[in-house]
Amino acid sequence: MMTAATTPFRTMLVSCVAYEEGRKIADIPVADVSEYVHRPDCFVWVALFEPTQAELEEIAQEFDLHELAVEDASKGHQRPKIEEYGDSLFAVLHPVEIVKTEDGSDDFRIGEVDVFVGTNYVLTVRHRTQLGFAAVRARTEREPELLRHGAGFVLYALIDNVVDRYFPVLDLLETRLEAAEDELFASASSRGKIEELYAIKRHLMALKHVVSPLMEAVGKLYGGRVPHLCQGTQEYFRDVYDHLARINGTIESIRETLTTAIQVNLALIGISDNEVTKRFAAWGALITVPTLIAGIYGMNFKHMPELDWSIGYPLAIFSMIAIDVLLYLRFKRVKWI
Amino acid sequence: MMTAATTPFRTMLVSCVAYEEGRKIADIPVADVSEYVHRPDCFVWVALFEPTQAELEEIAQEFDLHELAVEDASKGHQRPKIEEYGDSLFAVLHPVEIVKTEDGSDDFRIGEVDVFVGTNYVLTVRHRTQLGFAAVRARTEREPELLRHGAGFVLYALIDNVVDRYFPVLDLLETRLEAAEDELFASASSRGKIEELYAIKRHLMALKHVVSPLMEAVGKLYGGRVPHLCQGTQEYFRDVYDHLARINGTIESIRETLTTAIQVNLALIGISDNEVTKRFAAWGALITVPTLIAGIYGMNFKHMPELDWSIGYPLAIFSMIAIDVLLYLRFKRVKWI
Amino acid sequence: MMTAATTPFRTMLVSCVAYEEGRKIADIPVADVSEYVHRPDCFVWVALFEPTQAELEEIAQEFDLHELAVEDASKGHQRPKIEEYGDSLFAVLHPVEIVKTEDGSDDFRIGEVDVFVGTNYVLTVRHRTQLGFAAVRARTEREPELLRHGAGFVLYALIDNVVDRYFPVLDLLETRLEAAEDELFASASSRGKIEELYAIKRHLMALKHVVSPLMEAVGKLYGGRVPHLCQGTQEYFRDVYDHLARINGTIESIRETLTTAIQVNLALIGISDNEVTKRFAAWGALITVPTLIAGIYGMNFKHMPELDWSIGYPLAIFSMIAIDVLLYLRFKRVKWI
Amino acid sequence: MMTAATTPFRTMLVSCVAYEEGRKIADIPVADVSEYVHRPDCFVWVALFEPTQAELEEIAQEFDLHELAVEDASKGHQRPKIEEYGDSLFAVLHPVEIVKTEDGSDDFRIGEVDVFVGTNYVLTVRHRTQLGFAAVRARTEREPELLRHGAGFVLYALIDNVVDRYFPVLDLLETRLEAAEDELFASASSRGKIEELYAIKRHLMALKHVVSPLMEAVGKLYGGRVPHLCQGTQEYFRDVYDHLARINGTIESIRETLTTAIQVNLALIGISDNEVTKRFAAWGALITVPTLIAGIYGMNFKHMPELDWSIGYPLAIFSMIAIDVLLYLRFKRVKWI
Amino acid sequence: MMTAATTPFRTMLVSCVAYEEGRKIADIPVADVSEYVHRPDCFVWVALFEPTQAELEEIAQEFDLHELAVEDASKGHQRPKIEEYGDSLFAVLHPVEIVKTEDGSDDFRIGEVDVFVGTNYVLTVRHRTQLGFAAVRARTEREPELLRHGAGFVLYALIDNVVDRYFPVLDLLETRLEAAEDELFASASSRGKIEELYAIKRHLMALKHVVSPLMEAVGKLYGGRVPHLCQGTQEYFRDVYDHLARINGTIESIRETLTTAIQVNLALIGISDNEVTKRFAAWGALITVPTLIAGIYGMNFKHMPELDWSIGYPLAIFSMIAIDVLLYLRFKRVKWI
Repeated sequence: MMTAATTPFRTMLVSCVAYEEGRKIADIPVADVSEYVHRPDCFVWVALFEPTQAELEEIAQEFDLHELAVEDASKGHQRPKIEEYGDSLFAVLHPVEIVKTEDGSDDFRIGEVDVFVGTNYVLTVRHRTQLGFAAVRARTEREPELLRHGAGFVLYALIDNVVDRYFPVLDLLETRLEAAEDELFASASSRGKIEELYAIKRHLMALKHVVSPLMEAVGKLYGGRVPHLCQGTQEYFRDVYDHLARINGTIESIRETLTTAIQVNLALIGISDNEVTKRFAAWGALITVPTLIAGIYGMNFKHMPELDWSIGYPLAIFSMIAIDVLLYLRFKRVKWI
Repeated sequence: MMTAATTPFRTMLVSCVAYEEGRKIADIPVADVSEYVHRPDCFVWVALFEPTQAELEEIAQEFDLHELAVEDASKGHQRPKIEEYGDSLFAVLHPVEIVKTEDGSDDFRIGEVDVFVGTNYVLTVRHRTQLGFAAVRARTEREPELLRHGAGFVLYALIDNVVDRYFPVLDLLETRLEAAEDELFASASSRGKIEELYAIKRHLMALKHVVSPLMEAVGKLYGGRVPHLCQGTQEYFRDVYDHLARINGTIESIRETLTTAIQVNLALIGISDNEVTKRFAAWGALITVPTLIAGIYGMNFKHMPELDWSIGYPLAIFSMIAIDVLLYLRFKRVKWI
Repeated sequence: MMTAATTPFRTMLVSCVAYEEGRKIADIPVADVSEYVHRPDCFVWVALFEPTQAELEEIAQEFDLHELAVEDASKGHQRPKIEEYGDSLFAVLHPVEIVKTEDGSDDFRIGEVDVFVGTNYVLTVRHRTQLGFAAVRARTEREPELLRHGAGFVLYALIDNVVDRYFPVLDLLETRLEAAEDELFASASSRGKIEELYAIKRHLMALKHVVSPLMEAVGKLYGGRVPHLCQGTQEYFRDVYDHLARINGTIESIRETLTTAIQVNLALIGISDNEVTKRFAAWGALITVPTLIAGIYGMNFKHMPELDWSIGYPLAIFSMIAIDVLLYLRFKRVKWI
Repeated sequence: MMTAATTPFRTMLVSCVAYEEGRKIADIPVADVSEYVHRPDCFVWVALFEPTQAELEEIAQEFDLHELAVEDASKGHQRPKIEEYGDSLFAVLHPVEIVKTEDGSDDFRIGEVDVFVGTNYVLTVRHRTQLGFAAVRARTEREPELLRHGAGFVLYALIDNVVDRYFPVLDLLETRLEAAEDELFASASSRGKIEELYAIKRHLMALKHVVSPLMEAVGKLYGGRVPHLCQGTQEYFRDVYDHLARINGTIESIRETLTTAIQVNLALIGISDNEVTKRFAAWGALITVPTLIAGIYGMNFKHMPELDWSIGYPLAIFSMIAIDVLLYLRFKRVKWI
Repeated sequence: MMTAATTPFRTMLVSCVAYEEGRKIADIPVADVSEYVHRPDCFVWVALFEPTQAELEEIAQEFDLHELAVEDASKGHQRPKIEEYGDSLFAVLHPVEIVKTEDGSDDFRIGEVDVFVGTNYVLTVRHRTQLGFAAVRARTEREPELLRHGAGFVLYALIDNVVDRYFPVLDLLETRLEAAEDELFASASSRGKIEELYAIKRHLMALKHVVSPLMEAVGKLYGGRVPHLCQGTQEYFRDVYDHLARINGTIESIRETLTTAIQVNLALIGISDNEVTKRFAAWGALITVPTLIAGIYGMNFKHMPELDWSIGYPLAIFSMIAIDVLLYLRFKRVKWI
């Protein structure tokens, strides 16, 4: 039996703790897990971060996990789901973090947490995310009575923790959409606006991809036949489901608004095109009409009395200006200029 | 036991009344609620307005409400839903008010009412809305026999009251859509029209967001397995459901009409663009053709017999006018001008 | 007991007839209804037209109708539905009439018929429609054996009558769509065409609004658990359902065709825009190129040998014409003109 | 009892044959049908083509068919369906034929076949189609053992025959779509292309209208509760269902491709518009810039040294050409020309 | 009994192997299959490649396969499905290969594999694909204990093998979409971009056509009633289902992104059109305004004092340049140039 000090899991092992009747009894080495797990009054909580396949398989043996679930967890890149393997559950969650890109704009980083839950253990395996579950563990240690709800409650707390972090992400998208809407009618259409609408859509769909399958999965943890582990905590899962349904509803709403915004943008571009053509035509008239007059008096006919008038030239200039003023006023009235 | 006079709930407590066999027996202090609630012949009705978390929790203890429901109610911003917690129900309703914005246009204010219903109590918690349930309470006091239907009937009356207020909101949207449609074909396309279509769409979706989840929730209160509280009032809930289905159908219909209107608007903008280009081309011809003639007679060839004719100049001017008249008539005929 | 002669229901009462073993026995006064209804061998058929609330309530008492159904019937503006109240059924139907508007175009008038059906009575309440059920009643009196199927058969006959009247409405829409399609590719795009497509869409959706909920409701009257009243006539309701499904399928089909037609119209407008721009450009070249030549020979250089040639002027004019002819042929070949 | 020779069904009666233990025993007159149908070892097969209502009703009596089914069959214009009437089945099938229109393009003719199937009879009624079931009957006579599967097998064979004929129709639409796609990017957008896309869409929807309801109906003939007649042939109906599902999947796929093609076409038209405008602008510059130079040297200032230079004129002409060449190369480089 | 050496199945027979208790015992001739299949401890694995109908039928007799399944397999061109025939299963799978077209772009080749699975045999029939199942067979021979899961496990392994090959196909489409998105906002809209979006859409739909029906079919192999053969391997099929659901979700996501990209492209084309028109108008003004000035001083009035000024000509030229500079700066400021 190895001691924690010599275990090779140093970097990937975040914590490995045994609880007894809700109280933490010890940080235990991974190799001892199987011992504690078989004591009915014990609860073992192990948290890993990006373990190698070998490391994961060693732990899997300690907990006696199902081959397929372990394969999913070692590969990562699963879609959110909650599966029953006998009496235990295997859940895949996708936490989402807002991160700043190099050019200062917001981007999302979608991580993955694989959770194995049995009657008296929880094993979490984090991939590609800094978001841990320290808060959940702290709460459990602070309020040991929560563990009396059983392992189902721990699963609930983990899912709830992940779902709660979707709200600021959604808020960010709503804020960006509102900003884009304010812009929409305020100024001329531009590539930038369309690019922003497109970017919001992309982020929204990434979020939807994360929320929808999880909602579907959580919906099977309350009402009707539910896994044994979740039987005492159905109301809690219904609550999480409700949060997911709310997020999903808002996603749908933003999605439809975006579609409309893109269509409306197209119409605004058409109107803008119209206006430019009209203004172009109006100014064109203001230039070409005097040019015609100048052309007329540039003709070389012998007999053109106006040419001999001493006020001929000023008169011509005046008539050009007068016609342009009249045209200008007319175009102004019909709003072509 | 505190008296009503010294309770700190003054501002948030709208009313707290006990009924016995359908008749109001007293305004009671909140701290007495638990006593009255345990008397089977009693019915307690409490209405709160934006309580603090502490205030809400105190009342929750009097009624022995479920932690999750209380958390939802204290946070607000839930989506419409109706949940069973054991024998009691927790409902979230979203009343909608039409309010005038500063620039005189109509806007909606979406509030929230959380309702806790047990065998012999109702607790309503209002957020962000001035719309109260005085009418419902008055009716109950006027027709005490309604309470014989049990607490389910009170829940029905509250929901019905909220749903009835959706109709004028929907009517407003329909009226605005009809006005927008009349405009659509009547005059030139403009940013204003598109902005109005977009605004109607936004309001419509806000309403849909409020109606759809409630419809889904109410649909579970009649037919099949229904919560114990609602068993004697299924026909009433079916009636509310039907109203919600009607609203929902109309929303869908407006939504599709809006989509079509936006598409049609795009086509009209295209046609308008076409017309402007044609008119531009026609007037351009009326100017450039005489300019060409003037240019010809502005050439400096030695041998241009027309230049020496005494009627050369008038003839040139006449031919310009004649050509323009012909062109004008032709353009008129093909409707380019 | 009032006699029929003195009843105040004169204007709203269309008929009130009692049948015995399929044969009409008497026109009876409304106040006698409750007597006849309680005779098991009797069947009472009452038809009302836009009764006042008071009138309706009086009759409701005779038949002992459910408060909620009566409220729906007195308010009108319900969506199509069929509801069970104990052993009786309450159906809302929307007959559609084609009416001519003042400017000669076709419009639809959507009425409402509320039907109360019990074991041995039928009560119809018409709103906003001239279409009565004389044909149904006549058939029932002509073939009394039909009544042996029970009240469910009468309900079927009424629904079938309403549904049969949807077909000419649908045919009218199909005819108008076909006319619009023929126009689509035949001539230039215009506001009128788009307006027609939009109008068809609006009418179509009004019809859909009437057909879909009814189809859904009728679908519950055969197969699985059906109301007691309809148990002997399931095959008839399936037949009506099938007609509604056919109408609904055609509506969906027209709807999709309309969407495509509007999109196609947009493309045609774009092509037309393209063509106008090309023609504009071609004619512009035919004018501006000679203008350039004229401009060149209008220059005042001392040494321009062509100016002194005696054939200089005709040559210039000829070259202008020659260039224009060449350009014209070229534009003709690429179909810009 | 009439003999076949004197029966008035001459034109509409295609065949009326009795089989015994799978072997054809006789062509029988219609009036004898009821006799043969009541012999349990007999199987009667009647095929009609567009009978009058009277003719149909006479046969209906021989077979004792349900009034509603007969009404449907005499009216025609039903949507595809399969209905149970007691122990017998009533099916409506829509065979589709490819026909050449006068201008050489392909069109579809959608017929209708109403099939009545009982334990030991099949009655087919064809409307508006030349496609008969000679092949099905021939196969049955050739392989009499097939009849041992019972009447359900005959129904299967008829449906399978109709469904098999949908494949060439679908192939034709796919071929036309592929040709339209090849065209899409190959040459300029034109009314013809759009018209073709629209025509394919229309045909596709007609086919969908025929396939979808039939698929839904056949789906009820295997798995779960199935009509008595089809119990031994469920695997055959599942096979037909699978063919219909495949057709339906392809229809959906073509439909979505068409929608995309129309949208893409719109984008291509926009790009084409762009290109025309650019080319127009470029050629405009090539004409107007020399015109400006000519205008400058057409000015009448006393002191314009260039005018007196002997190389002034050639220089001016040369500068015009040089500028145009430079402009041309520049426009060429940015692909405006 | 024929020996393997003289069998006519040479080209189409890929392998025909008998296993006993998980160990390979012999390559057997096809004609011996029926013998081995009837030994309960034996497992026969036959792989065919594009057999003729006659060859297929001969083998079908050895295995006693159902006529309809054999017909499907000999025809090919089925949609993906899994069907029960008594105790055996018939599955149609569509492997997808990425192949290079002649012009170097990627294309997909969609093959077909028909799989017949019984209690102790597997028969695979490949059409139009080079992708074999050597890997699956090798694994089975390497880990004979896998065969203890029964034939259901072999079916799982085959499906899993096919599904795993969809991921690189999907990745290729995602990569191409991302490249197309990067292009979208980077440079001007062009036919090439649209053609690429269209091509991705087409490939995507081909993949969807392959994935969706298979997902539906696999979904019936776990949970609820499952075929006898798959009862011990439900968790494996759930795992494959999950992979298919993930692929399907990504397909939906790409599909929606493509739709948005095409719409956005349309808007970008509109904006580009706008910009070209503006630039055209601006440069037009820079040319026509000096032309007007030149025209004015080209008039032939006797009394035009400027003409006699010695600085008249330079002044005119200067004013032309000055105006153009001012216009240029102004257009620059409003971004028309």
